Amino acid sequence: MQKPSFDPGLTQKFTLPVTRMINQDGSFNVRRRGVTWRDSHPYLRLINMSWLGFFASLLAGFLVVNTVFASLYYMIGTEQLAGINAPTAFRRFLETFFFSSQTLTTVGYGGISPRGLAANALAALESLCGVLGFAVATGLLFGRVSRPSARIGFSRFMLIAPYAEGVSLQFRAVNRRSNSLVELEANVMLMTVEPSDDGEAKRRYQILKLERERVIFFPLTWTIVHPIDPSSPLYGMTQDDWKRRQAEVLILIKAYDDTFSQTVLARHSYRHDEILWDRRFAPAFYVDEQGDLVLELKKLGEVV
Amino acid sequence: MQKPSFDPGLTQKFTLPVTRMINQDGSFNVRRRGVTWRDSHPYLRLINMSWLGFFASLLAGFLVVNTVFASLYYMIGTEQLAGINAPTAFRRFLETFFFSSQTLTTVGYGGISPRGLAANALAALESLCGVLGFAVATGLLFGRVSRPSARIGFSRFMLIAPYAEGVSLQFRAVNRRSNSLVELEANVMLMTVEPSDDGEAKRRYQILKLERERVIFFPLTWTIVHPIDPSSPLYGMTQDDWKRRQAEVLILIKAYDDTFSQTVLARHSYRHDEILWDRRFAPAFYVDEQGDLVLELKKLGEVV
Amino acid sequence: MQKPSFDPGLTQKFTLPVTRMINQDGSFNVRRRGVTWRDSHPYLRLINMSWLGFFASLLAGFLVVNTVFASLYYMIGTEQLAGINAPTAFRRFLETFFFSSQTLTTVGYGGISPRGLAANALAALESLCGVLGFAVATGLLFGRVSRPSARIGFSRFMLIAPYAEGVSLQFRAVNRRSNSLVELEANVMLMTVEPSDDGEAKRRYQILKLERERVIFFPLTWTIVHPIDPSSPLYGMTQDDWKRRQAEVLILIKAYDDTFSQTVLARHSYRHDEILWDRRFAPAFYVDEQGDLVLELKKLGEVV
Amino acid sequence: MQKPSFDPGLTQKFTLPVTRMINQDGSFNVRRRGVTWRDSHPYLRLINMSWLGFFASLLAGFLVVNTVFASLYYMIGTEQLAGINAPTAFRRFLETFFFSSQTLTTVGYGGISPRGLAANALAALESLCGVLGFAVATGLLFGRVSRPSARIGFSRFMLIAPYAEGVSLQFRAVNRRSNSLVELEANVMLMTVEPSDDGEAKRRYQILKLERERVIFFPLTWTIVHPIDPSSPLYGMTQDDWKRRQAEVLILIKAYDDTFSQTVLARHSYRHDEILWDRRFAPAFYVDEQGDLVLELKKLGEVV
Repeated sequence: MQKPSFDPGLTQKFTLPVTRMINQDGSFNVRRRGVTWRDSHPYLRLINMSWLGFFASLLAGFLVVNTVFASLYYMIGTEQLAGINAPTAFRRFLETFFFSSQTLTTVGYGGISPRGLAANALAALESLCGVLGFAVATGLLFGRVSRPSARIGFSRFMLIAPYAEGVSLQFRAVNRRSNSLVELEANVMLMTVEPSDDGEAKRRYQILKLERERVIFFPLTWTIVHPIDPSSPLYGMTQDDWKRRQAEVLILIKAYDDTFSQTVLARHSYRHDEILWDRRFAPAFYVDEQGDLVLELKKLGEVV
Repeated sequence: MQKPSFDPGLTQKFTLPVTRMINQDGSFNVRRRGVTWRDSHPYLRLINMSWLGFFASLLAGFLVVNTVFASLYYMIGTEQLAGINAPTAFRRFLETFFFSSQTLTTVGYGGISPRGLAANALAALESLCGVLGFAVATGLLFGRVSRPSARIGFSRFMLIAPYAEGVSLQFRAVNRRSNSLVELEANVMLMTVEPSDDGEAKRRYQILKLERERVIFFPLTWTIVHPIDPSSPLYGMTQDDWKRRQAEVLILIKAYDDTFSQTVLARHSYRHDEILWDRRFAPAFYVDEQGDLVLELKKLGEVV
Repeated sequence: MQKPSFDPGLTQKFTLPVTRMINQDGSFNVRRRGVTWRDSHPYLRLINMSWLGFFASLLAGFLVVNTVFASLYYMIGTEQLAGINAPTAFRRFLETFFFSSQTLTTVGYGGISPRGLAANALAALESLCGVLGFAVATGLLFGRVSRPSARIGFSRFMLIAPYAEGVSLQFRAVNRRSNSLVELEANVMLMTVEPSDDGEAKRRYQILKLERERVIFFPLTWTIVHPIDPSSPLYGMTQDDWKRRQAEVLILIKAYDDTFSQTVLARHSYRHDEILWDRRFAPAFYVDEQGDLVLELKKLGEVV
Repeated sequence: MQKPSFDPGLTQKFTLPVTRMINQDGSFNVRRRGVTWRDSHPYLRLINMSWLGFFASLLAGFLVVNTVFASLYYMIGTEQLAGINAPTAFRRFLETFFFSSQTLTTVGYGGISPRGLAANALAALESLCGVLGFAVATGLLFGRVSRPSARIGFSRFMLIAPYAEGVSLQFRAVNRRSNSLVELEANVMLMTVEPSDDGEAKRRYQILKLERERVIFFPLTWTIVHPIDPSSPLYGMTQDDWKRRQAEVLILIKAYDDTFSQTVLARHSYRHDEILWDRRFAPAFYVDEQGDLVLELKKLGEVV
């Protein structure tokens, strides 16, 4: 029985060539179809959407709920609300709308206040809805603000750089944020397209062995180095081979975020056209006169 | 001394045959008796109950607390509340009820407001209770909404499918949600009923070795494959054997949810009557014209 | 150089005999002295104190803050608060107190409202304090309610029970709550007092090897078994030896709580006087007529 | 190909000598330059700033937002707010400011209340902003209060102490807080400056092997001991060598906080001038007459 080849969970057979497996922002280049409403989690959508979309959704929700309650107060009759004395029907509706918003947010100025039984009961229900609804809205808002998010920066290009007596594949990472990341672990894979036994093209995944797979601290930059020795799948690969085999280097970095007390992950990929040959990274930090280390974030990808 | 047989924590001796160990939704087929009030955690109950039951509980709690405070205000005397001027006793009670609800939710219109000492003190206490009580209610509500919940979908059936030169047991999993799951690990066990030394039937648990126990990424489907080679406990087992030995395949999948920064687990089981023989899974994704991958969630269990 | 003896972090030399290392509720029998205010975390104190103490602290805080603000309003002058018209100075102070409580909880009926500059500014500040202060109070309250707390029940006694051809030390654990615990791991240690080289008594710690250190699932009971074979430190130990050497069995159980998505720990200990000799545990669950498993929590420690 | 030397992620080449790698408070002695606004996470800044700065930011934000809304109400016209009747323009502006603060905090006394269309709409918007904005402010406040923070205390000095027949490097740690820490793991590294092949000075990192790298419990003190045997990089090092090679001992302690259910980390370092030679630690705990253990936090660094 043949040994199954390594697969990180991206499967091997595709009908057509794929432009890119992992996008530069770390997401997968996959579109999902056939998602039913049961599979779509409103929390996930609201926490992942853009800030503009999020605030627009909140405002829209606020307007819709107020319109619904305003209509109910209006149907009950505006004489049940003390303080409403507008001359036209439309103005009276607007006043119920504002009364509704004062109830929902629990401001309750009292300029308008319920006096009939039905209006009082509806107002009690609305203030309950307000407290509960705003709990979800503000929880989502705070969840978005406080969400632990490592921002690990990667150098723009990978390098094929001199290393000991040979060469190596190198790229550089830095913690762009000031939170404390510790115990980092890097996983680097090479993905290539190979002709398969049945003539079809087939994806092949190979782990690239690193000089150092783990670091404990991460206050400066980390240069991740894969030595291209004879045991490396990159050994002898020319610039042309990289292109022909549609090579893509997939990176997963895992770290413990000591500020948020959580494990964080960063994904990245480099394609065959994101390599610089025969270059070295320039140092990104120096010691100043006081003996303190200074890290220059802008020099992350600087080469010499 | 005899080596103890493997047991995943489900014990081996039962007086009668059990219909199913793990239900299709992943829960255990176990009922608990003798739970005292000290063992029942109200938070757990409220976070696990249905949405209907949860909102009914909130509304009931709101009504009960308001009724209690309304009764207290009424006992103190409605003359201590400015703005109450209903003609009948029942209407006056209702007005204390609405005043209570305005205090509890901190709306406080002021249409009714406390003026006596006792009413003022009670209102201060009620607003304190309101703030604290709603903190628990809204925390529970948001906890329910934001609870990290992987929805790993499993194919309806397991297959006995061709594999290399032999056959294999296969099932397929997919992440039904759009959150990012990484570093998945699958544990698959076979549970059978075997005649024991003392004549009694005894449960037997055996780990099924997998072609691939771990994947790093999970953007597409994952076909979990147990090769049925001579070392497999399934080797040579007929459809009839499966039934006679009441075989059940227990599955535990563990993953790291990168969106919620937490470890998530999914349980599932297949019984002897949830196997298709001599079938293969059809691919559930394809590459479109732009070179992007498209995943069809509906094709998760599709066979050919 | 001599090999250091095993120590789980409880140190070995004590000047006097210790009654008990780990209390029945899992806490350590250690009192801390010399704790400065910098070491005492108010959050930790408030989250660990009794419910009575917690609510008393909240109420006391509410009264103190209101008294402080009431005094300030009173010093500014009650003519700056519209709606205050009590005849006596004390009654006017009480009215500022109630106004303060209406501001702090943001009820704001408006029966009393600020009209002067200083009172308005103070009211704005107080409502800000109220919102912030209640955020901490309600956060603490919800933190107490929602705190993940495994309640693993242990059998009242440990047993020296027959096992295969010999005997074993056994105790039984159960999940008293309905949350889902998985991947349990047990650590069991024997602590004895031994005469040391320099004549002084010295604590000795030894790991007790278990028949099964891990279980994956925990829907029923788990009988934790240490076989007393010739390699066991308990081999040949009589009831008298247990007492003379002040033996205590320390237990640490670690589990993943799938409901709260967190790791939970349970500690327990059995002293030499909490052992039953030559007994067996009675089964704590059975299969009912529908083929469902029924677990009887009350039978956790039942022996035959 | 030469084997790369060990590096915990702090890199090896520096242009000038560094005063200290890890500060006494556990932070790294690194300044960051070139941080763009995209890299600066407001949540991280607000959660890490001093308490004074935090409250000043909150108050400033409150004043700014109220001033903005007050200006808008003033531009709309104060006749749209019922209850404003100050004689001067400045006083009227102040009254819109206080109305704004009553709306933002949702107190809403009603002494001033909106009656025009524009004022009502703006008030509805402001109360929405207030609820959302305070959710972030109070979330941050509670996040600061409840943030899990182990306070592991370290002895002021490291000792070169007698040990078995030789000597050892020792320091002592204690949990200064009353939360329960378990499963501690210590990593201790020696950092020295060594002349490199190319004449330049180069940092060298070496792991110091510990007598005991892990403890399960941590209710008392933990003396972390590195035996200086012939295999130790410290073997034969004199006080003068420590200074000349700018030696610094880097410490990382990892623990599971059972109270907060999270992993916590503590960093510390000792420089060559923070060593006491030929001393021993005095015991920091004793057994009292009732047989209970008493831990004296003040004796953590006491030597004899």
